[in-house]
Amino acid sequence: MKLYDLELSGNCYKVRLFASLANIDLDIVAVDFLDGEHKRPPLIDLNPWGELPILVDGAHVLRDSQAILVYLAGTYGGAAWWPAEPHLQAEIVQWLSTAANEIHNGPGAARLVHKFGYAIDKADTLARSARILTLLDDHLAKHDWLALSRPTIADCAVFPYVALAHEGGIDLTPFVQITAWISRIKALPGYTGMPGI
Amino acid sequence: MKLYDLELSGNCYKVRLFASLANIDLDIVAVDFLDGEHKRPPLIDLNPWGELPILVDGAHVLRDSQAILVYLAGTYGGAAWWPAEPHLQAEIVQWLSTAANEIHNGPGAARLVHKFGYAIDKADTLARSARILTLLDDHLAKHDWLALSRPTIADCAVFPYVALAHEGGIDLTPFVQITAWISRIKALPGYTGMPGI
Repeated sequence: MKLYDLELSGNCYKVRLFASLANIDLDIVAVDFLDGEHKRPPLIDLNPWGELPILVDGAHVLRDSQAILVYLAGTYGGAAWWPAEPHLQAEIVQWLSTAANEIHNGPGAARLVHKFGYAIDKADTLARSARILTLLDDHLAKHDWLALSRPTIADCAVFPYVALAHEGGIDLTPFVQITAWISRIKALPGYTGMPGI
Repeated sequence: MKLYDLELSGNCYKVRLFASLANIDLDIVAVDFLDGEHKRPPLIDLNPWGELPILVDGAHVLRDSQAILVYLAGTYGGAAWWPAEPHLQAEIVQWLSTAANEIHNGPGAARLVHKFGYAIDKADTLARSARILTLLDDHLAKHDWLALSRPTIADCAVFPYVALAHEGGIDLTPFVQITAWISRIKALPGYTGMPGI
């Protein structure tokens, strides 16, 4: 099973983190992002969106880090990470949407501006970050883990760009609940980091 | 089962559309959005994010339209709309992420600027819209439905803000595959529209 990967991508790290926590073997294929390898064949044929990560497992080809987490957890990870009950899946999907939108366009985009110099409206990324980090901190004041009473792929999806917030020029110190949750994730058996975390 | 609803919200319409297609009864509760009813108790206690829709089904309270679709389809809609196989769920989740991010921040946000006068960067919403509509049109050139060989909640999640694109000042005429897909959705048994569609 191949993961087309970029080490510095928080989206790719979501998948590497979960695979490590759930003890799933991945064949990591480093993509030459700066040379645009993901924007031309053969990778653009695997993912027409021209984005990473891409997972290829036999006949199954998936884009989107959230979808890859669902696939890996449902196929190889076991019910602890992605249960079969729809009401529990829905609790998790709430946070997959949060990862895809608010986290991606908040601290994720702030990092693209601050660390990598992307031409994105910095004030907008910081405003979005302040909102979602406040909501997240409030949620974590009452819950140890995002979706269920245990860690799930919801935590894996939201964690990377939150734990990388400092690379977006965002100070997490005031968010004491988020800081404690980051420590809980780092203490999980099988945890692995990435550059910057 | 109560849906706290705003008729003009495409996110709320996702849920009303799916419930109608899958013949699921909802008790629609109209929320006074302009008066900020969703920003104060009791609704803010149901959804601290201060957003609509909110679904309440007994002990289950859900925010986020994508999560609500998973819950309704998994609990009441049947495997046709949300199958149990993880690789099929992952195909659908790809498009739930697309709905939460690219569609929301593309044609969804363009509509907020163009129709409702929100202070959002219009050029950014139009650039995001052009990208996602092109990807969507290319995908639909090879597929009748977004995720599987039949309509699923993926189609319900993406449809509203695409079909409302004209309210964001976006002309869908060049996107002939999208236009055909919109017609296929409108022809489904149980289809219901909303103002503007």
